[in-house]
Amino acid sequence: MDAPEQSFLREKSLAVEDQELAVGTLEDSHAAKPETDAAIQLPNKSKPDKSAVEKDREDFREAVVKTLDRLLFVHKSFDIYRGVAGLYDFGPHGRTVELNVLSLWRKCFVDEEDMMEVACTALTPEAVFNASGHVKNFTDLMVKDEVDGAFHRADHLVKSYCENRKKDPTISAENAAELDKVIAHVEDLSAEELGGVWNHCSSHEESTFSSSSPLQLDVSNFLWSKCYLRPETAQGSFCNFKDYYNLNGRKLPFAVAQVGRVFRNEISPRQGLLRTREFTLAEIEHFVHPEHKSHSKFSDVAKLEFLMFPREEQEKPGQFAKRLCLGEAVAKVSVFVIIFAYLLFDKKKKLILISTTENVLGHVNSETLGYFIGRVYLFLIRLGIDKERLRFRHHLANEMAHYATDCWDAEIECSYGWIECVGIADRSDYDLRAHSEKSGHALVAQEKLAEPIEVEVLCLMVMKANLESKGEVEFYVCTLGKNVTIKKNMVSISKKMDKVSTWDFTPVVIEPSFGIGRIMYCLFEHCYSTRPSKAGDEQLIVFRFSPLVAPIKCKIFPLVKNQQFEEATKFISKELKSNGIKQDVDITGTSIGKRYARSDEIGVPFAITVDSETSVTIRERDSKDQVRVSLKEAASVVTSMAEEKMTWQDVWASFPLHSSAAADE
Amino acid sequence: MDAPEQSFLREKSLAVEDQELAVGTLEDSHAAKPETDAAIQLPNKSKPDKSAVEKDREDFREAVVKTLDRLLFVHKSFDIYRGVAGLYDFGPHGRTVELNVLSLWRKCFVDEEDMMEVACTALTPEAVFNASGHVKNFTDLMVKDEVDGAFHRADHLVKSYCENRKKDPTISAENAAELDKVIAHVEDLSAEELGGVWNHCSSHEESTFSSSSPLQLDVSNFLWSKCYLRPETAQGSFCNFKDYYNLNGRKLPFAVAQVGRVFRNEISPRQGLLRTREFTLAEIEHFVHPEHKSHSKFSDVAKLEFLMFPREEQEKPGQFAKRLCLGEAVAKVSVFVIIFAYLLFDKKKKLILISTTENVLGHVNSETLGYFIGRVYLFLIRLGIDKERLRFRHHLANEMAHYATDCWDAEIECSYGWIECVGIADRSDYDLRAHSEKSGHALVAQEKLAEPIEVEVLCLMVMKANLESKGEVEFYVCTLGKNVTIKKNMVSISKKMDKVSTWDFTPVVIEPSFGIGRIMYCLFEHCYSTRPSKAGDEQLIVFRFSPLVAPIKCKIFPLVKNQQFEEATKFISKELKSNGIKQDVDITGTSIGKRYARSDEIGVPFAITVDSETSVTIRERDSKDQVRVSLKEAASVVTSMAEEKMTWQDVWASFPLHSSAAADE
Repeated sequence: MDAPEQSFLREKSLAVEDQELAVGTLEDSHAAKPETDAAIQLPNKSKPDKSAVEKDREDFREAVVKTLDRLLFVHKSFDIYRGVAGLYDFGPHGRTVELNVLSLWRKCFVDEEDMMEVACTALTPEAVFNASGHVKNFTDLMVKDEVDGAFHRADHLVKSYCENRKKDPTISAENAAELDKVIAHVEDLSAEELGGVWNHCSSHEESTFSSSSPLQLDVSNFLWSKCYLRPETAQGSFCNFKDYYNLNGRKLPFAVAQVGRVFRNEISPRQGLLRTREFTLAEIEHFVHPEHKSHSKFSDVAKLEFLMFPREEQEKPGQFAKRLCLGEAVAKVSVFVIIFAYLLFDKKKKLILISTTENVLGHVNSETLGYFIGRVYLFLIRLGIDKERLRFRHHLANEMAHYATDCWDAEIECSYGWIECVGIADRSDYDLRAHSEKSGHALVAQEKLAEPIEVEVLCLMVMKANLESKGEVEFYVCTLGKNVTIKKNMVSISKKMDKVSTWDFTPVVIEPSFGIGRIMYCLFEHCYSTRPSKAGDEQLIVFRFSPLVAPIKCKIFPLVKNQQFEEATKFISKELKSNGIKQDVDITGTSIGKRYARSDEIGVPFAITVDSETSVTIRERDSKDQVRVSLKEAASVVTSMAEEKMTWQDVWASFPLHSSAAADE
Repeated sequence: MDAPEQSFLREKSLAVEDQELAVGTLEDSHAAKPETDAAIQLPNKSKPDKSAVEKDREDFREAVVKTLDRLLFVHKSFDIYRGVAGLYDFGPHGRTVELNVLSLWRKCFVDEEDMMEVACTALTPEAVFNASGHVKNFTDLMVKDEVDGAFHRADHLVKSYCENRKKDPTISAENAAELDKVIAHVEDLSAEELGGVWNHCSSHEESTFSSSSPLQLDVSNFLWSKCYLRPETAQGSFCNFKDYYNLNGRKLPFAVAQVGRVFRNEISPRQGLLRTREFTLAEIEHFVHPEHKSHSKFSDVAKLEFLMFPREEQEKPGQFAKRLCLGEAVAKVSVFVIIFAYLLFDKKKKLILISTTENVLGHVNSETLGYFIGRVYLFLIRLGIDKERLRFRHHLANEMAHYATDCWDAEIECSYGWIECVGIADRSDYDLRAHSEKSGHALVAQEKLAEPIEVEVLCLMVMKANLESKGEVEFYVCTLGKNVTIKKNMVSISKKMDKVSTWDFTPVVIEPSFGIGRIMYCLFEHCYSTRPSKAGDEQLIVFRFSPLVAPIKCKIFPLVKNQQFEEATKFISKELKSNGIKQDVDITGTSIGKRYARSDEIGVPFAITVDSETSVTIRERDSKDQVRVSLKEAASVVTSMAEEKMTWQDVWASFPLHSSAAADE
């Protein structure tokens, strides 16, 4: 193949990567998405020029990232050693914002929902990820570009190669059909098979890529046996399920929360905070009875209306997320019928729980999943995420991780497009069942049956009637995790049986998983704004953080240096400190206008200027308006507003406006 | 060599390990300590029987660890897969205690001392640890016992072997002298040399140990280049020093705090929480001018008196820590004289800063180090550490890490002996200088010189006088990091020189480093107590946590199940929640006595029993006494006590005592 095509392949693979990053999911589900497919299927031509909109977005992003870096909100780790791709540090302001976000998260979820917060280790033995399926399912075959050292996913390259070959007008119909087959099945290939296909493609192309070699995600040889660094906190919570269940008095539902660092072996990390190799995840594993996924507090959120993007809407061309009422989006509660029967598998008489379920109606498959969608919405809005740029998108069937039966993502729009920031998945009983099997410890809950015999007889009668009319019945067998067809001749129904008063079952898990760094990055973009300086000669940056999120709540500026102002400053500073309000005194000799600007650009919501011994002014960051408040009251007014017990409206109504716009320069 | 001696060697090596664990330091400084030496030098005899005291300690420890495990404060990670040595999870109560400890830590250090809190990544490129000296200095040569798979330090085994050989009466004087030489120099040997010596010893002994191979600490091949997992958070703070310095307005001193997970490649982790492979470290890097280590708030702590164990006391036999006044223990402030001179090294005229220092008096080498010792003391006491079992021990000269010029450990006594929980080290300018050199980025601060010429002339005159009287002067040269002897003929003193108004210097670092897990374990032991049940038939466990630390602040017990009590319970529960007080309602049908016992064993300080619609009782955990408080006041009384704004003394004085000791069973 000639050189231009070769370079096209490389360019294409970069385009693929761009797309992949933009639509990447927290769970690293590598199923292709429509957008990615579109990118792969682009005709063989040079990239189109960037649209004006795209250019604006990039300029905006650059301005935000530059500001975050300059003010040390977030910056490259180990920059003096030229850094490591995908590793970022939080500087003082960034870390404080992170702590504020986590503090609200704990309040909204752990405290208000009475969850157990735990802390498991990041180091995890191999057996855990063998059981969970991570080792098998998250191993991507990678191809290294020997020229620039970048890695590319082999399946994407193969697909791209095939699409490209098909455009050759001289190709035979047979070959074209073969290419179509590869395209259709490339995602089903094992690493070995894919490697073979790629080697075939690459030798045809005489490409500069090295031959493929499998690289595992999240791998680290550590300690004396093989250990991994966790890519999610959940597995620790699953492994300890039985202990938590016992601690909870053997009652369901209950939730286990965990906040911690996780590690992803990202291949080509770009996009700053959005795709990093180490980041903070805040995860909730809510364990429920598989047949009782209703939620006692669902009515608290049922009336919420926000942007939702159901699966069927995504499948129609040109559709967008729609404003829906959560209560209406949630399915009718599934009705389960519990049926007991003697099944005669293997000639053994064994009691197995069988359940049938009615068809699920609506978009969201359970109240519990719906409840968490509502709570996530309220949490993000309270942080300061723009609700017009927040949507809940239903995963398409082919993009869910291997363990999920349903998943909705909270996606936030930023300059990179719609970014998944929270994944709310129904992980079914996949993980608990997998660990039960691999570890030999039954991770199950137990239920008391009030009147087992009556239920049994009733259900058996239902079953008998069905068998007689249809000759067979299909059941989902909980303890086997699959559907089983029972034929008439397989079953002997007898009314005499052992008395059973309890049964073991595997709970299912509803998991809201919060990518804290992604939420923060989107929040930074949503709060970033500029306004002209008074002279109009420059654009001043203002981060419009809510008091809850702002890294510093209050700056105190003595107007000029003298002993009286210094004492007044100390008085306020000390009071704020003892109220637990993060404050900072700026005694640099620069003009008050410059000091306001410095305070605005890190998003400080309140600025107190000490311009007399008895009273001070408090300035509102966004309007730049000021009120005059007595020295003694100043700290308590700011504290009340910082703790959201009082609003600026209350303050405007209670204190005289101070007009000195002239100072604000 | 015969079999008994061989088995002695293995037994000895285990004894060495025991000692090593007991005296191990957070910084993993592997210099031999007196205790370890003593263990190695034990005569060739079987281990003495455990003393009664030691037996009691072990029983106590077992009881505590069992309780921590049963109540899920701390338990083995991945236990269903038989766990991984050295990995522990915090269950709900343990994690909440950890969050409480960290919250107090932030309050006492980050907030009260206006520190910058940052968060760097745990993944760290190799270049960083090459520069810091970790790769070179923390690489121990290990020997694996092929029989039980345990690892032992080769230097300890060689020493043990030599000591043992010397006891052979048939040995020649020459050979004995050679053995002495090996013993004296074993710690100076390189890994290669040590490997050679060990192979020699082991072949003589026909031991079951495998041949030695070097194992690096903290090693992980990750990402696309070699990465390590950090063993301390400090290096991230050092690498970013220049950015933090700029953010601080280019002023010293300032401090950078970091709380995060760190990883240690522990060889034989035992001792539960005390020596783990992954744990939380809370570290402070306080950057100061090398010649201004005084501290403006030192007087706040100068009058504190507590147990200190200075170096010279440790060197005397049979000495213990003594109660000393911190102010007296701290050295007189070092007096520095800044001298400028033209030095004629290498025939180049170069301006170099030279300083002389007076002899340091006292035990602690600077006010800043002393100030942190005082703050650490206050922090630990406030957590609930028994002050009679807390001492500050000065590191001996040979046990400090390679980067430290001075170090004091806060050691807490527990069933394992005196355990280092906080290391307070003067790391000098070692790290900043090392990273400056290796990265090519000057990690320096800048100082303005007010009147450079006058100082210069004065100092030169002092220097000239000394040179003339003694013929030479010794100086510590900051920019070289070592002492230099200047002889009369090397220096030409001239009054005419360039005008200098600023100079660059490398700040030094005072680092208090808190092992949060160790502090917590010691706290658990200090708070653990038992008391007989009323019937006297069993011992009930009580964790006597302070309200600050307790995982749950208040339990609420409706005495019997009825609607009125349920409503009253809800009312109090809701109020406490909205006050941010962690509470829990126990509505199980068991007796109130059993519910109290369950509450006591997780250390809940306040228990509210709802036994009427209008008033409730509040019970004090340790005395079991109760007061009667109106329903409306209950939550606010508990909140005030939980927030330490009110004491039980205040409450006893304000509310009537409720006598129902009978219930407490």
